[in-house]
Amino acid sequence: MKNTMGQSVCVTLFGESHGPEIGAVLDGLAPGIPVDEAYIAEQLRLRRPAGRISTARQEADPFRIVSGVFEGRTTGTPITLLIPNGDTRSGDYARGPARPGHADYTAWVKYHGFEDYRGGGHFSGRITAALVAAGAIARLALSGRGITLGSRIARCAGVADAEWTDPASELPELNRKAFAVLDEERGERMREAIEAAAKEGDSVGGVLETVVLGMPAGVGEPWFDTVESVLAHALFSIPGIKGVEFGDGFALAEKRGSAANDAFRLSDGEVRTRTNHNGGINGGITNGMPIVFRCAVKPTPSIGREQETVNLISGEETSLRIAGRHDPAIVHRARAVVDSVTALVLCDQLALRFGTDALGEEEK
Amino acid sequence: MKNTMGQSVCVTLFGESHGPEIGAVLDGLAPGIPVDEAYIAEQLRLRRPAGRISTARQEADPFRIVSGVFEGRTTGTPITLLIPNGDTRSGDYARGPARPGHADYTAWVKYHGFEDYRGGGHFSGRITAALVAAGAIARLALSGRGITLGSRIARCAGVADAEWTDPASELPELNRKAFAVLDEERGERMREAIEAAAKEGDSVGGVLETVVLGMPAGVGEPWFDTVESVLAHALFSIPGIKGVEFGDGFALAEKRGSAANDAFRLSDGEVRTRTNHNGGINGGITNGMPIVFRCAVKPTPSIGREQETVNLISGEETSLRIAGRHDPAIVHRARAVVDSVTALVLCDQLALRFGTDALGEEEK
Amino acid sequence: MKNTMGQSVCVTLFGESHGPEIGAVLDGLAPGIPVDEAYIAEQLRLRRPAGRISTARQEADPFRIVSGVFEGRTTGTPITLLIPNGDTRSGDYARGPARPGHADYTAWVKYHGFEDYRGGGHFSGRITAALVAAGAIARLALSGRGITLGSRIARCAGVADAEWTDPASELPELNRKAFAVLDEERGERMREAIEAAAKEGDSVGGVLETVVLGMPAGVGEPWFDTVESVLAHALFSIPGIKGVEFGDGFALAEKRGSAANDAFRLSDGEVRTRTNHNGGINGGITNGMPIVFRCAVKPTPSIGREQETVNLISGEETSLRIAGRHDPAIVHRARAVVDSVTALVLCDQLALRFGTDALGEEEK
Amino acid sequence: MKNTMGQSVCVTLFGESHGPEIGAVLDGLAPGIPVDEAYIAEQLRLRRPAGRISTARQEADPFRIVSGVFEGRTTGTPITLLIPNGDTRSGDYARGPARPGHADYTAWVKYHGFEDYRGGGHFSGRITAALVAAGAIARLALSGRGITLGSRIARCAGVADAEWTDPASELPELNRKAFAVLDEERGERMREAIEAAAKEGDSVGGVLETVVLGMPAGVGEPWFDTVESVLAHALFSIPGIKGVEFGDGFALAEKRGSAANDAFRLSDGEVRTRTNHNGGINGGITNGMPIVFRCAVKPTPSIGREQETVNLISGEETSLRIAGRHDPAIVHRARAVVDSVTALVLCDQLALRFGTDALGEEEK
Repeated sequence: MKNTMGQSVCVTLFGESHGPEIGAVLDGLAPGIPVDEAYIAEQLRLRRPAGRISTARQEADPFRIVSGVFEGRTTGTPITLLIPNGDTRSGDYARGPARPGHADYTAWVKYHGFEDYRGGGHFSGRITAALVAAGAIARLALSGRGITLGSRIARCAGVADAEWTDPASELPELNRKAFAVLDEERGERMREAIEAAAKEGDSVGGVLETVVLGMPAGVGEPWFDTVESVLAHALFSIPGIKGVEFGDGFALAEKRGSAANDAFRLSDGEVRTRTNHNGGINGGITNGMPIVFRCAVKPTPSIGREQETVNLISGEETSLRIAGRHDPAIVHRARAVVDSVTALVLCDQLALRFGTDALGEEEK
Repeated sequence: MKNTMGQSVCVTLFGESHGPEIGAVLDGLAPGIPVDEAYIAEQLRLRRPAGRISTARQEADPFRIVSGVFEGRTTGTPITLLIPNGDTRSGDYARGPARPGHADYTAWVKYHGFEDYRGGGHFSGRITAALVAAGAIARLALSGRGITLGSRIARCAGVADAEWTDPASELPELNRKAFAVLDEERGERMREAIEAAAKEGDSVGGVLETVVLGMPAGVGEPWFDTVESVLAHALFSIPGIKGVEFGDGFALAEKRGSAANDAFRLSDGEVRTRTNHNGGINGGITNGMPIVFRCAVKPTPSIGREQETVNLISGEETSLRIAGRHDPAIVHRARAVVDSVTALVLCDQLALRFGTDALGEEEK
Repeated sequence: MKNTMGQSVCVTLFGESHGPEIGAVLDGLAPGIPVDEAYIAEQLRLRRPAGRISTARQEADPFRIVSGVFEGRTTGTPITLLIPNGDTRSGDYARGPARPGHADYTAWVKYHGFEDYRGGGHFSGRITAALVAAGAIARLALSGRGITLGSRIARCAGVADAEWTDPASELPELNRKAFAVLDEERGERMREAIEAAAKEGDSVGGVLETVVLGMPAGVGEPWFDTVESVLAHALFSIPGIKGVEFGDGFALAEKRGSAANDAFRLSDGEVRTRTNHNGGINGGITNGMPIVFRCAVKPTPSIGREQETVNLISGEETSLRIAGRHDPAIVHRARAVVDSVTALVLCDQLALRFGTDALGEEEK
Repeated sequence: MKNTMGQSVCVTLFGESHGPEIGAVLDGLAPGIPVDEAYIAEQLRLRRPAGRISTARQEADPFRIVSGVFEGRTTGTPITLLIPNGDTRSGDYARGPARPGHADYTAWVKYHGFEDYRGGGHFSGRITAALVAAGAIARLALSGRGITLGSRIARCAGVADAEWTDPASELPELNRKAFAVLDEERGERMREAIEAAAKEGDSVGGVLETVVLGMPAGVGEPWFDTVESVLAHALFSIPGIKGVEFGDGFALAEKRGSAANDAFRLSDGEVRTRTNHNGGINGGITNGMPIVFRCAVKPTPSIGREQETVNLISGEETSLRIAGRHDPAIVHRARAVVDSVTALVLCDQLALRFGTDALGEEEK
């Protein structure tokens, strides 16, 4: 299984940066889920370059749903989303030297030079648009069951956002922001730092923190398909993500057990934990607390500075200065992708646990 | 698919902490690979409690191979490893209140109380012995192709190990150590810190760093089954692991692109990178450089201190002080497990990429 | 995994009979395989209704490849094929009573009435066009390795075709025929029998026999993923197929072992069998002889005669006479679908066995 | 995935004919299902050679459950069944010439001679004992939900059994018979025909017919994972099965649509069909009627007559007369295996459709 993820709810991704269309097939979602196309468009807009810190394309990507939705609701059969690649300028991207930090060289080895190299081809971040469109439908399915989620830019270019006060009340507003921070003043400092890097032909990275509210306890498997495993699997397929941690994550490694364990207590008859150092997951299985994780997003590899590299066709060392438009940061855009794959994974987990009708309507 | 991992080379894990036997089925490994039982025993020994900082069981676990090995070599059909649970004292572990940080509560929700709760049952770290035995065979398969790997305790209880000088020359010795550090003096400080925590009825965590040498370039998939995805999936199923990062990982989020990209160069006609900030993986695919990743291991949740919790049967709040033997740290033991699942994943990746004969012998 | 088939080479199918487009994503095929669009069109034409014994649509379906092919060759990344549904008349197909022999009722139960019921929706034979397009590329991949295949109408409406004389020399011509019989005179009698049934508002079934030449020995697994298992799995997903048999199949049940075993002999130093009662497969694994199997195709369930049924919305018994165009036989059209899924399965088996480059080019 | 079958409820099979133990891991079954070891023993007895028409081993195989069952019920974690190979005489089975009709040659090609060839090794029908033990637990799970099944020898050695009168009332007695026929007189004629073949050093085949009662409607998928697909996949992995047909199967190919369609009617408010030519499945999905299918079982390939073959080691043509005990028919023994894999597949289908708790108990 290659460009397909999931067991009961599956997504298959296809397309290249400069091909005619990219898209996704979202299969296995329960029948009867209302599909709000405006919401999908909104999610696509959040993934798009944002204002002065990004490249020029600005409108939400147009998309078509060509299967699996009938009279405004999911049918239960595969949903296919297509997004045309309108604004491509292949002339910018003839096969050049391998771009450091990109997949140019590894694609060359794996595909023996037959890959569509233009604009990164199938490896391009462009493809995440299709993932976001599919993920938007998954989020709609989850919200119908009271499960909500969102991500904030916890760190960017060395600037930290403020901490959560109350995710349940902060998520709605956060999820509408193009640059997802809790504290706007810190967000402004992040954007300034991004611009400063851009002026030097350089780029910056960041950390996204995701919170999921409302997941029932008892989902996940003890071995191999722990909730951490299936989430990390999906998250690490997002271009640029190089680290994933749950709960206190790497900070747990520095703590003592007495400070890392989450004491159990009762809350309205339900078992809850006093703290959430383990990010809502014990033994690989959800415990009913918020699922919390963070993703490290590396700085955009496309930079304007000269870099040493190799010309793959001639097999000679050379240098490269990447011209044209490129994002000085992708962390704010990766947020929509992280939200999407999270939603897709959770739909799959819920369908595996509670059956294929779990997220849908039983009565038309 | 629950307790099975892999696509071409698969491992299925079974057993409970206090059942008669635990074990693993390792399927899909190529025929003709020599199976060195002494090496398996050695790996099991490295997973066992080590000296003064661990619980009392000391000998390597006895194991039996009941299928898939004939005349000392793999046959290509499923290899079944069985390890008896000799030293169990079920009396110690009657169903008590849910232990914080453990899977007691989540197992209760998922399995409706039918789970074998004794000693953590199927969630017990005990089960990793079977994983280590299977992983030992996978490592033998890899080493027959010149692929070696090993992990060191990069941090434990706030103490950092020294950095690698030359992994290729350091791995052989490191891989024989029960407490895997490069710098013995720092290792001694780690052990002292572990003992200090133990005296206070507490436990500590740590960070493991793994290096894989010799992996060919071009292995992995662009989406969903990136090498990072499949490794993280496997690693996050190891009890206690709460974070995984590749290359510079979370530190990459703080760097600029010019410091994060790995410039390409030629080395004896081969494309290599000058640095390895990306941990040997670009676009989800191996680039021929060492694969490097780190795992955050949380402090052992079994501690001697009193903790607040809930009695699952009565549904009442209570407190708990865990008696009996427990490890004040598992990071040094988790290392054998990390090495094992890494080897299992890489065997699977190589078989998917190069076919089911990739790691075996074609001529008897 | 629902509308996706395969492990290393996978196909995902989507679309509904009366939606805007149907299609398939073919993933995992090796890079460098020449993609001949005229050949795809030819296969689509063979699946189309043929002359007087079928419904009116006649041209090959137009199709677009929107990903995975670059400069005329496969890239190794997902190939997406889209086929518009030009000639749909939804007015013909408002939700009526459940058609006997169709999936109307089972879809209603499974999808709770949210399914796109028009023209059979996602269950329609129409969807096989996408499967045929994907299968055509798989056949091109196989033929590049000397593996050829084809199917004949062994029986239809009670008339038997002549037997094979020499499949290797008969396949090329057979594969160009719209009505695939070895003996044209018998084919004419079949068509007459189909017409006779059509005049009575009825339909007929048939048996397809498939031969695969050139498959190497040693492909398949002893348990669960035997070659028979994976082929039958795929074949039984073709609408209307209700039986699959390999080699002498059900006739073997009537034979004695001495007449059923295929004696081994040497041929130019290669082990071959004198007879091929086992259809090229022993113990689930190819033995280097032709793979031979037959599929039973039931008579088209859409018939012009009055049938008893139930109105699903009102929950009342009623009767139904299906108006509009329908095929009095689909066996001749199912042949292109059988060939396609066979090719897809074999590509997957070869990639699993010999690696992802098995069917492609290593040098551009 | 090789020796593992299933998606939510999975079985992994291991062992060789002459190894120390064979076994199976049954994973994903819901918690709380009572495990009746006497019932498992009974099923193993039905798979054993029966009296005068079979080889000498007679007792039910002893077995051990080493995981996944606690206090007499399933825990929800992997159930491991081990069966020792007590009565092996490896001396009988040194590597001889490839036995026609067996997997000796294909195993040699696939495993390069490293396979455990003794007694057929991993390909031996012996391994089905583990499958039967696992299947017995699956049948217990189904019967707790009112789903029952059984198979009869519809044909053997040219003799047909009588037809079903009322499967619901006939199944209980049939399922206790060692030689599963409805009509004992015809069963006696079958046994005589088997003995006659045996006296001539030959063997016979037969046809098994399986009926499943009580399956709910709406289970299965439209494409690729149709109920026919997943059942056939499993059935074709049983050694000796060369044909599978559902409902009227190949006979449907000879019928007209008006005689093949099953008219819908109402029965106590439920939609049912008047006839069951489609075997309880429309469009790949269960329709609530009995599931009916037949399997062609080829004659045992081990025969006492001289056969032409090849010596794989020397690469020379030779002849072979198989000495020692062998069954002149396996159709009566294959019945327990067919029942078992059917039960395993249906448990998986129900868990996928209705969730992992579908077959278990929610309250301890």
